[in-house]
Amino acid sequence: MSKECTKIKELFSAQDAHIGHEVTVRGWIRNHRKQKNMGFIELYDGSCFQSLQLVYTTESDKDGRLKTLHNGACIEAAGTVQQGFQKELIELNLSHVTLLGDCPEDYPLQPKRHSLEFLREQAYLRPRTRLFQAVFRIRSVAAQSIHAYFADRGFLYVNTPLITANDAEGAGNTFTVTTLDITGIKEQAKKASEEIFKQDFFGIPASLAVTGQLEAETFAMAFGDVYTFGPTFRAENSNTKTHMAEFWMVEPEMAFCDLDRLMDVEEDFLKTILGQIMKQCKEELTFLEGFTKLPLRERMQAVIDSNIVRIRHEDAIRILKESGESFEFEPEYGEDTAKEHEKYLTEKYFHAPVFIYDWPKDIKAFYMYQNDDGKTVGAVDLLVPGAGELMGGSQREVRYDRLLARMQELGISTDSLDWYLNLRKYGSCDHSGFGMGFERLLMYVTGMENIRDVIPFHRTPGSCEY
Amino acid sequence: MSKECTKIKELFSAQDAHIGHEVTVRGWIRNHRKQKNMGFIELYDGSCFQSLQLVYTTESDKDGRLKTLHNGACIEAAGTVQQGFQKELIELNLSHVTLLGDCPEDYPLQPKRHSLEFLREQAYLRPRTRLFQAVFRIRSVAAQSIHAYFADRGFLYVNTPLITANDAEGAGNTFTVTTLDITGIKEQAKKASEEIFKQDFFGIPASLAVTGQLEAETFAMAFGDVYTFGPTFRAENSNTKTHMAEFWMVEPEMAFCDLDRLMDVEEDFLKTILGQIMKQCKEELTFLEGFTKLPLRERMQAVIDSNIVRIRHEDAIRILKESGESFEFEPEYGEDTAKEHEKYLTEKYFHAPVFIYDWPKDIKAFYMYQNDDGKTVGAVDLLVPGAGELMGGSQREVRYDRLLARMQELGISTDSLDWYLNLRKYGSCDHSGFGMGFERLLMYVTGMENIRDVIPFHRTPGSCEY
Repeated sequence: MSKECTKIKELFSAQDAHIGHEVTVRGWIRNHRKQKNMGFIELYDGSCFQSLQLVYTTESDKDGRLKTLHNGACIEAAGTVQQGFQKELIELNLSHVTLLGDCPEDYPLQPKRHSLEFLREQAYLRPRTRLFQAVFRIRSVAAQSIHAYFADRGFLYVNTPLITANDAEGAGNTFTVTTLDITGIKEQAKKASEEIFKQDFFGIPASLAVTGQLEAETFAMAFGDVYTFGPTFRAENSNTKTHMAEFWMVEPEMAFCDLDRLMDVEEDFLKTILGQIMKQCKEELTFLEGFTKLPLRERMQAVIDSNIVRIRHEDAIRILKESGESFEFEPEYGEDTAKEHEKYLTEKYFHAPVFIYDWPKDIKAFYMYQNDDGKTVGAVDLLVPGAGELMGGSQREVRYDRLLARMQELGISTDSLDWYLNLRKYGSCDHSGFGMGFERLLMYVTGMENIRDVIPFHRTPGSCEY
Repeated sequence: MSKECTKIKELFSAQDAHIGHEVTVRGWIRNHRKQKNMGFIELYDGSCFQSLQLVYTTESDKDGRLKTLHNGACIEAAGTVQQGFQKELIELNLSHVTLLGDCPEDYPLQPKRHSLEFLREQAYLRPRTRLFQAVFRIRSVAAQSIHAYFADRGFLYVNTPLITANDAEGAGNTFTVTTLDITGIKEQAKKASEEIFKQDFFGIPASLAVTGQLEAETFAMAFGDVYTFGPTFRAENSNTKTHMAEFWMVEPEMAFCDLDRLMDVEEDFLKTILGQIMKQCKEELTFLEGFTKLPLRERMQAVIDSNIVRIRHEDAIRILKESGESFEFEPEYGEDTAKEHEKYLTEKYFHAPVFIYDWPKDIKAFYMYQNDDGKTVGAVDLLVPGAGELMGGSQREVRYDRLLARMQELGISTDSLDWYLNLRKYGSCDHSGFGMGFERLLMYVTGMENIRDVIPFHRTPGSCEY
């Protein structure tokens, strides 16, 4: 490891400057084609999506060593940069190769298209494929762009706790976190649960957080604009293409912000992040468009260029009812919208992303602003063509009495959330925030259909590999 | 909320441009001093460390409303910007105030110095204090700078799973994650544990991750340079000033990287992040220097200006043995160093940060590179004056047989880590990485002595509030 090495990204970003020069690169063999008189090695090093072609002649490979190099092997390669056969790409005329790490013939990744199911089982190897090089680079660029977006705008990044004694959504479905020996569980021999938890690490029942919002609100009341970006958990026993037990969420929270400004922020945020991904991940998106047969960039650009529609839930339902479409589920005032409704609104009626706001209070969370009509709350969902619901947010209820009444009505513990209620007593102000499931965004951007394929290692019922 | 509001940060960053102009600000009252003819309100909005002084005369406060404004209240204030009494600061000559959210007299935060213990109990309010405005702004700037550092250098950000079936450090001390009803635990009624876990969410015992390193290595073998930055967990029952059950870790992992280059990266990383914090958090650091009586910036600058010493563990022990110091713990070859030893080396002997490398293998983890001497491994700890150990890293063992032997020797499951072993079969190469406890860095930068005071909501034995 003595020689100075060049990253493949550097070579491609300044091709002309390297032509005619000797360079050393290191990476992995994606493919090795052997012809009668020549050999072609496709080398990638993960620094960029493109591979570098290494070329040698059978004549120069006197001892036949180059010819035996396997797919998947890790090598250091020296040679002279030259114009490639394809005008737009340079290649390396090999002079010397060192084998750093060999790879056996029975390597699971072969130079052919593997099924996504197979690659999911090989989750520790799939980042080496072109497909997942594209997906995970986009994931990283998106995450870094999200941090940069908020940093540029003075938002405070707050790390809310993962282990928690709250159940913010009032929904159950949480994982228990314990240091007790749970192998001794026997249903019929229940002690008083209080006794049990006294012996546990935290002295009270603890679980994994389903949101960081409530804690983030405490910081918004001190720093104005804040956001969380971290993992959240749901112990939902559902094996669908869109659910996981562990996923990442972005949750901004802003003081002095009502529902209108919330929509402004959501719109600007989404457009900026999509723009960054399009700018930084051209090769990756080109590849994914070929793989998914979806117009990924076209539809992102359409979002960026759109004026996002803003419409009340009631009006959305009316449009749906008057549409003349035959839906599987009849749209109803006071009820949630179905995927088919969202599709109709965004793709057939408005041909644009849509904010639906002022939702029926009975299908939304306890902390949302109670509108004067007594029926709706200041909640807003963002629907995007080809993606469905991408973000969900609300103005928060800051009137102590109203919030308390709603919590009591829904049977939510006001004892353990007294601090949350107190926020409404101690210098409160209008504030709002939204949550975006990071993997939902990535599915939309990459066109991948299964949420398991946009996270490095998925956690679903029965699945906790790696 | 109709009026356009100005952030206090904007006012201070372009003071001259605002003088003589009418502006509207929103924020919280930190302090309200009432004199005979005048009143002074210290207003902060979280956008920057500084407060804005609002001034009014008793004459202008005809109905006496301004006089009754409480500490902690949230207000919207309009007025004319004018040169303050202190030459370097502007203030606002109040013309109109709207009370957005009142705050009662028994507000827990009073305009006096509260003990850190008290503030820890009021963790949801403490971000409003000057002290924690400084600490948590620095935390956010540090985190965002870390992401920017890696983004600028092409590192892939990888989100490794939090729920895991591995125990990377081979150490125990993990939290169990379960959806079983654990209130029915009865020690004497043990079923076969396998039976129990079959009914659990993942079908196998699952716990919270103590590191993302092993999974990050799989990504380094695909993307070259990667890093994780997220929460990790230890179920250690220790109530010290430096331990928590939930904390954040940065873990970079680099392909084609040996121990020397690892130290290069650690050095550059630390100096860059410290530089960013010094650049972006001047007011916060000034305040913290007053609070802690520590030369925070001076010692950070000294690190930035230093050439970090690199010394083998054996040589460090020899220096300690020959020092003539009377240590509480006698330094020994083959053993760990104590805090007093680290202090002597960095503060008395070298007067600089020190990398200690080539550690005795028996006190280090199974995955570290086994040196030819048969006694040491390619591990490196970074010690910093005033901070102690800030980072710990190693070159990884990539020789399949050696790694396997070491795992067997230590009784680490090679079944559940077969994928980790396989990384050594499939095109492996030298690679190295380090871990930095994010809160350790923050304690050093802020001078806070208790780790509970550099994280928004701490998780320690018996403590799971908020």
